[in-house]
Amino acid sequence: MAGLDQLLDDEVFRAFASYTTIILLKMMLMSPLTAFHRLTKKVFANPEDCASFGKGENTKKYLRTDDSVERVRRAHLNDLENVVPFVGVGLLYALSRPAPATALLHFRVFAGARLFHTVAYLLPLPQPSRALGFFVGYGVTLSMAGRVLQAALRL
Amino acid sequence: MAGLDQLLDDEVFRAFASYTTIILLKMMLMSPLTAFHRLTKKVFANPEDCASFGKGENTKKYLRTDDSVERVRRAHLNDLENVVPFVGVGLLYALSRPAPATALLHFRVFAGARLFHTVAYLLPLPQPSRALGFFVGYGVTLSMAGRVLQAALRL
Amino acid sequence: MAGLDQLLDDEVFRAFASYTTIILLKMMLMSPLTAFHRLTKKVFANPEDCASFGKGENTKKYLRTDDSVERVRRAHLNDLENVVPFVGVGLLYALSRPAPATALLHFRVFAGARLFHTVAYLLPLPQPSRALGFFVGYGVTLSMAGRVLQAALRL
Repeated sequence: MAGLDQLLDDEVFRAFASYTTIILLKMMLMSPLTAFHRLTKKVFANPEDCASFGKGENTKKYLRTDDSVERVRRAHLNDLENVVPFVGVGLLYALSRPAPATALLHFRVFAGARLFHTVAYLLPLPQPSRALGFFVGYGVTLSMAGRVLQAALRL
Repeated sequence: MAGLDQLLDDEVFRAFASYTTIILLKMMLMSPLTAFHRLTKKVFANPEDCASFGKGENTKKYLRTDDSVERVRRAHLNDLENVVPFVGVGLLYALSRPAPATALLHFRVFAGARLFHTVAYLLPLPQPSRALGFFVGYGVTLSMAGRVLQAALRL
Repeated sequence: MAGLDQLLDDEVFRAFASYTTIILLKMMLMSPLTAFHRLTKKVFANPEDCASFGKGENTKKYLRTDDSVERVRRAHLNDLENVVPFVGVGLLYALSRPAPATALLHFRVFAGARLFHTVAYLLPLPQPSRALGFFVGYGVTLSMAGRVLQAALRL
């Protein structure tokens, strides 16, 4: 299998694989973080989740929303909305023979911007910190999309 | 790198790359559209986002929900729910050696259906316009999934 | 096209294609399931969706939330949050030359865990059933991510 074997031998594809995995792992961290806030603050979305807290007494009171839980959930959804285009466009970009140094710059800036976005969302930092993190990552994906369209449409 | 170099030389893969990038760009448009509605209507989800509006006065009043903001957010989430399966299944489909004309038809119909879905959601158009956009896109992904399973399971 | 042609000839990649398609199809099932609950219980998020129910009378009363609809929507979002990392990391993992038996085990356990998670969420089963389904799937993705980083960073 010539082609298959060689994907992870390509410098750009290997960088894409590393940064994509790191970004997806960071996104995955939001799930246990949500669970941590739910458990420590006793804030649940499902009746069956409250059942282990105080049997016999009314556990319905734990079915509520909480600012810190909703904040983590918004950060998680924003990650999904931005990481999905990055992974899809980035994979095609990595296959479009970009200059290795240019590609590495794209992946690094995106990873840094999304990490900063998460920190700015969760602390939270005053605006426009979070907006900055968002727009830098957004710009990286736009730049890669331009390159993919150029390569795929033979412009 | 024979295989890697040749992915964007393949007619079907190049069409997949173009349409996927266009569909992901359209989905990405929903983020600034949400921000536009939030800023023009002063409707925010985070206290730090309101801080720049009227210092000194009570900015908590801008922490609210708004029909037009929620509508864009529902359209965005519906995009995510449908574009993720398209990109995943479509990539495998593009690697399954479909007839170029058939593949192109799938990609074009999906892109058109999702564009129509977004327009129908945001205007909004009377039902069943939006439902039609949804089901046509859904059907395209199902059709590609059938082909992938057939090819991968050697049916 | 040597490399492209051979992707679906590779045993591991073919298994990845099959399980990914099955997992994405299962996730796609949540959309019609949400629609089914909305239609049978007359619970809608958009005014235009209510218009066909009782013309002339006030249809705004159908603009409401419902526990069973929200439950399906939470299950759908949880799927998105977990299937996106699986597809992204799993694709890179399938390209990292894992032992076929090990790879098959990863894909099968993930598919089984997410199927169980959905059943546990929708019935619902008492906790920690759903948590178990979640953490098993989460662990599979972490294990694949470790292997990808190892291969991509040449550790």
